[in-house]
Amino acid sequence: MTLNPVLARIDDTLPAALERLMALLRIPSISTDPAHTADCAAAADWLVADLQSLGFKASARPTPGHPMVVGHGGTGGPHLLFYGHYDVQPVDPLSLWDRDPFDPEVQETAKGRVIRARGSSDDKGQLMTFLEACRAWVAVHGALPCRLTIFLEGEEESGSPSMVGFLRDNKDELTADIALICDTGLFEGTNPAIVTMLRGLLGEELTIRAASRDLHSGMYGGLAANPLHVLSRILAGLHDSEGRVQVPGFYDGVTELPDAIRQQWQALSFDHARFLGDVGLSVPAGEVDRTPLEMIWSRPTAEVNGVWGGYTGDGFKTVLPGCAHAKVSFRLVGEQDPFVLREAFRAWVTAQLPADVTVEFKGHGNSPPSVMAIDNPAFEAARLALTEEWGRPAAYVGAGGSIPVAGYFKTCLGMDAMLLGFSKDDDQIHSPNEKYDLESFHKGIRSWARVLDRLT
Amino acid sequence: MTLNPVLARIDDTLPAALERLMALLRIPSISTDPAHTADCAAAADWLVADLQSLGFKASARPTPGHPMVVGHGGTGGPHLLFYGHYDVQPVDPLSLWDRDPFDPEVQETAKGRVIRARGSSDDKGQLMTFLEACRAWVAVHGALPCRLTIFLEGEEESGSPSMVGFLRDNKDELTADIALICDTGLFEGTNPAIVTMLRGLLGEELTIRAASRDLHSGMYGGLAANPLHVLSRILAGLHDSEGRVQVPGFYDGVTELPDAIRQQWQALSFDHARFLGDVGLSVPAGEVDRTPLEMIWSRPTAEVNGVWGGYTGDGFKTVLPGCAHAKVSFRLVGEQDPFVLREAFRAWVTAQLPADVTVEFKGHGNSPPSVMAIDNPAFEAARLALTEEWGRPAAYVGAGGSIPVAGYFKTCLGMDAMLLGFSKDDDQIHSPNEKYDLESFHKGIRSWARVLDRLT
Repeated sequence: MTLNPVLARIDDTLPAALERLMALLRIPSISTDPAHTADCAAAADWLVADLQSLGFKASARPTPGHPMVVGHGGTGGPHLLFYGHYDVQPVDPLSLWDRDPFDPEVQETAKGRVIRARGSSDDKGQLMTFLEACRAWVAVHGALPCRLTIFLEGEEESGSPSMVGFLRDNKDELTADIALICDTGLFEGTNPAIVTMLRGLLGEELTIRAASRDLHSGMYGGLAANPLHVLSRILAGLHDSEGRVQVPGFYDGVTELPDAIRQQWQALSFDHARFLGDVGLSVPAGEVDRTPLEMIWSRPTAEVNGVWGGYTGDGFKTVLPGCAHAKVSFRLVGEQDPFVLREAFRAWVTAQLPADVTVEFKGHGNSPPSVMAIDNPAFEAARLALTEEWGRPAAYVGAGGSIPVAGYFKTCLGMDAMLLGFSKDDDQIHSPNEKYDLESFHKGIRSWARVLDRLT
Repeated sequence: MTLNPVLARIDDTLPAALERLMALLRIPSISTDPAHTADCAAAADWLVADLQSLGFKASARPTPGHPMVVGHGGTGGPHLLFYGHYDVQPVDPLSLWDRDPFDPEVQETAKGRVIRARGSSDDKGQLMTFLEACRAWVAVHGALPCRLTIFLEGEEESGSPSMVGFLRDNKDELTADIALICDTGLFEGTNPAIVTMLRGLLGEELTIRAASRDLHSGMYGGLAANPLHVLSRILAGLHDSEGRVQVPGFYDGVTELPDAIRQQWQALSFDHARFLGDVGLSVPAGEVDRTPLEMIWSRPTAEVNGVWGGYTGDGFKTVLPGCAHAKVSFRLVGEQDPFVLREAFRAWVTAQLPADVTVEFKGHGNSPPSVMAIDNPAFEAARLALTEEWGRPAAYVGAGGSIPVAGYFKTCLGMDAMLLGFSKDDDQIHSPNEKYDLESFHKGIRSWARVLDRLT
């Protein structure tokens, strides 16, 4: 039996593991703020030293931005790559924090003990669950369970500008059998979950132009084309009355949910009333014949994210503006191709323009959707491990947001990724008073020990 | 023959009349800027002195804002009130002016000689046409042609906050048989015109709210109500495909154009292609079965003047905003009641809200439409006078914008108003390098002499 003594070791040494996390949390490694460049380097160095103490051959590797931490250790199959990020979000507004964001503390709350600090949940606490699992394994067995590559980024919170170049430059070194990414959460704070579908994203900005300058509505109103009217009609036509996106060809490549996943999702009994109720809503507003979980995990969407034009200040100005603007984003699934959809959207908009009205487009981000290869036996092994640790059936879930690194691993390295993590919806990541449950940390470490046991 | 010597006197003394206008233009009476309060008072005092030199009993009358100039003179019927305003618009951006806006100059241009200065057209040059006509009359005949009240405002460019109170407080003194307002222009820069229809205005601001806070579209997109979608649908539904406003009851009280006016307008052969071409457009975008002049003069309209919501900065943010905003204005005609329409609009919007979505309204300005009493023989007399002076048939026209003072004269004093003036579309009022054609000034003075001759 290789697992039980490792779990016992984890339980026995939790206070020391917590102390190590606290040390890492004290380093204000805000990647987007140039004033914290040295702190990012310090966090990388701290992790290099910690990996070396576990027997990894580790170093901080320079990039045009903050360093990547890479460590290699262990022997024997499979070759697993673990990814996390050591940089954190800015802390402003500081006035909304109850204490120094970089002076971590374990606090008793009505919902249990939490580790309060910037980065506790996103992502230092999460990445340390894996390192602590490795530490216990080495302590009990004298060696890592298999060949492991640790890959920790310092720019995740600022758009990962160095990631693709670094992956391409170090392709052979970083390509493993599968990547394990710990930057996601429990489902509804209780159910272990493995993210197997990540929606892609397409961002478009459009500017509708009519008159060559702003017009006075007293002089021109009722006669001259109003770009705000044209824009409103285009945006209003994005969806039909049943919530379906009207861009021709939009649903090409959208696949239906496999029965097995559908059943798992039904078993999750997602409390969408609570989910919506938390933000003052009560009724799902998406496609009429889809479940709420489908709407946010497995269905493609079109959302208007911003609109502006004309007079928007205090009071009133009877202007017919010369132009009007909107930002629109699409979440993509299955085989939807962001480049094909960009052209389809632009053609659809352009075809609706009346005389004298023109449009200009500006492309923002685009990333393809990812569907994980869950026929890889690693997924089922991890699912069983999580189910055992948490006492609830782990599910394959979707994620509405994008986690670009999973796509980069696939496109740059041809490597599949498995995303699992232990954060909770109320962790307040990116917000003041971020926390990570002590239970997430403790059972997270135990979860990884179980996953490693089942994968090796 | 009382008229011809007056016209001759006007021609002979034009240089002196121009010098007086230049003196008034040198006073920077910007009413909206507290730094120019003393200048407004100086302009009022200058006008009082000028009126006194014509034999008017005149004074600058205090208000909570800038003074009103009131002068009484002449005897015999009819009793005419002349209105103009001595305040001017701000001059910024000053860098776009070719010279000091308050250092007036007569300039030769390809289109003739112009008086270049802030206020030359709006409204100092125009109000002085009436005073100079009076001056010539007095010089030739030794007295004013009838009982005249001169009423000059100093707050027209800042919303006339003191007007209604002043009219109410001085009702008996200011009520004449008819008001003559000189603050409008020639039609297409060539045809004399009397404005007999002024559209009213209703301004509404709406805020559509859904979630209690901004949501991340990755987490909620496709599930949560998006107020930008709801707002777009409402605004898109303001007009049908033929340009008709869809608010129930909107066209109640809208009257068709009398045949006589319709014929006059047809005779104007309005060059809508040039009018639209000047601002980069080519096709009328309003109601399909209406002429361009109807669209801007005699038909009611609904125009979206501003929209904003969500992320409107650089780059992209996949936000589902908690709220979205729009400013909408309606131009009203005939018997349309702004208060009835406000309620109809609000009910129409509210009826379209899906579950979880609310709306808040904020009323902005409202003014009823005015239709002048052209059966008053003064109108036909003035029309003939203008036709004689300009050598082209003068027309009764509409005005798309609102000139609130005409409505105040009617509602506060029960007094009809006749609006005629000599500005041109290219006078750049409210803009840098404002000008007034010397021809407008000269023939404007002559026009008033002819109008006075025909009215008395």
